[in-house]
Amino acid sequence: MCQLLGMNCNVPTDIVFSFTGFAHRGGRTDEHKDGWGIAFFEGAGVRLFVDHESAVASPVAELIKSYPIKSENVISHIRKATQGQVALENCHPFIRELWGRYWVFAHNGDLKEFSPTLDGAFRPVGTTDSERAFCYLLQQLRRRFGDTPPPLDTLRQEIDQLTREIASFGVFNMMLSDGTALFAHCSTQLHYIVRQHPFTQAKLSDEDLSVDFSEVTTPKDRVAVIVTEPLTTNETWHSFESGELKVFMDGAPL
Amino acid sequence: MCQLLGMNCNVPTDIVFSFTGFAHRGGRTDEHKDGWGIAFFEGAGVRLFVDHESAVASPVAELIKSYPIKSENVISHIRKATQGQVALENCHPFIRELWGRYWVFAHNGDLKEFSPTLDGAFRPVGTTDSERAFCYLLQQLRRRFGDTPPPLDTLRQEIDQLTREIASFGVFNMMLSDGTALFAHCSTQLHYIVRQHPFTQAKLSDEDLSVDFSEVTTPKDRVAVIVTEPLTTNETWHSFESGELKVFMDGAPL
Repeated sequence: MCQLLGMNCNVPTDIVFSFTGFAHRGGRTDEHKDGWGIAFFEGAGVRLFVDHESAVASPVAELIKSYPIKSENVISHIRKATQGQVALENCHPFIRELWGRYWVFAHNGDLKEFSPTLDGAFRPVGTTDSERAFCYLLQQLRRRFGDTPPPLDTLRQEIDQLTREIASFGVFNMMLSDGTALFAHCSTQLHYIVRQHPFTQAKLSDEDLSVDFSEVTTPKDRVAVIVTEPLTTNETWHSFESGELKVFMDGAPL
Repeated sequence: MCQLLGMNCNVPTDIVFSFTGFAHRGGRTDEHKDGWGIAFFEGAGVRLFVDHESAVASPVAELIKSYPIKSENVISHIRKATQGQVALENCHPFIRELWGRYWVFAHNGDLKEFSPTLDGAFRPVGTTDSERAFCYLLQQLRRRFGDTPPPLDTLRQEIDQLTREIASFGVFNMMLSDGTALFAHCSTQLHYIVRQHPFTQAKLSDEDLSVDFSEVTTPKDRVAVIVTEPLTTNETWHSFESGELKVFMDGAPL
């Protein structure tokens, strides 16, 4: 299975600290070595980095760890191949455009015999169950709402229903963002934390590294971090319930 | 106006040499400093790097110059904003999926009052005339051929017709690739070279740098480089004619 990392903030924030711990699971402290990827929204634009090398060996991951790209919505993934070979087109996150916005998606889990009818509007390029699920999700949103995105609450209900439907085929922990909200669905394992004033020190569990967030934040900042397994040892992470969809906006769950 | 660089090869080849010269035009030897981007196909997958910093100041461009990513089809672009503000979503190349393949597009030029009817299948995220043209192009291909891609020759004819139509609104030098072929259309300015056995030394015009390709190639390699203005001083570049569409495959024009 793979691992997921998401970040949703009320001001553009860099993810260097969390990504440093997370990337160690890509081949060093864990077995997820079949590629990785990370997507950063900057306004309506997206920077997407994918690599079929392990995250610990990748020069691109080194860049991410040293270059503080500031973003309000980030989704990252390290891959342990279950379906689909090790190839660039099978690395998450995946990206598509719907309603004149980019949508970014990553999945941890395994869907069995999930072969929905795809009408051609969104088609997988690679061979993963994950990209198939993403294409199906966007297709159904477009069918349901046409060319006009609905209000967030309506969208949330529809995504909740679609994720339940897809999750009936197997394990479907997933993150999805259009650059404004971050949707996270838990089948088996997902945790989150909201960091806000007063900020304190955090210590990574995968590397001997600490950061004092009070030194790099303002009292107004708020940052939600969502991850498969907690990244730090000295903070309290909240577990998602199985089957739960949470929507994060401005650094907190709605 | 912007500058374009494309590469099409019969074996995966790195573009470090050509990109090093090209990137210098992004803020150092030329005025194209409003962002840049580069897309590398690797099989069906794409690595897309975009940055709204100038190519000479960008840490991501530094990575590209030092990390030899091997690819059979590359499209790169440095931007001098004419329409659309300086923002990540306005940086070329743009990417979309059609027929289960990624398509990558970059444009040099300026289209006046180009406002085609877009049916919603492909919508621009940013505000450039270029992304609008790309969306229109893919929409028309999908309308014409449905869910099944046509043979290359039929596709070429259709793209030729569509580029002529779009070019009637202004300057439309463009590059487009689906990872197998690279389509290049010239309105005003585009040059290409085919490097093949016997390989010789090439000297960049934008930087004091030479490379002896015979040391880094095999006799079977063939590489086409397509660019707005020739990159080297000691090789013979071929000019496109105005209105001409060329299709490159396996390192040579068809």
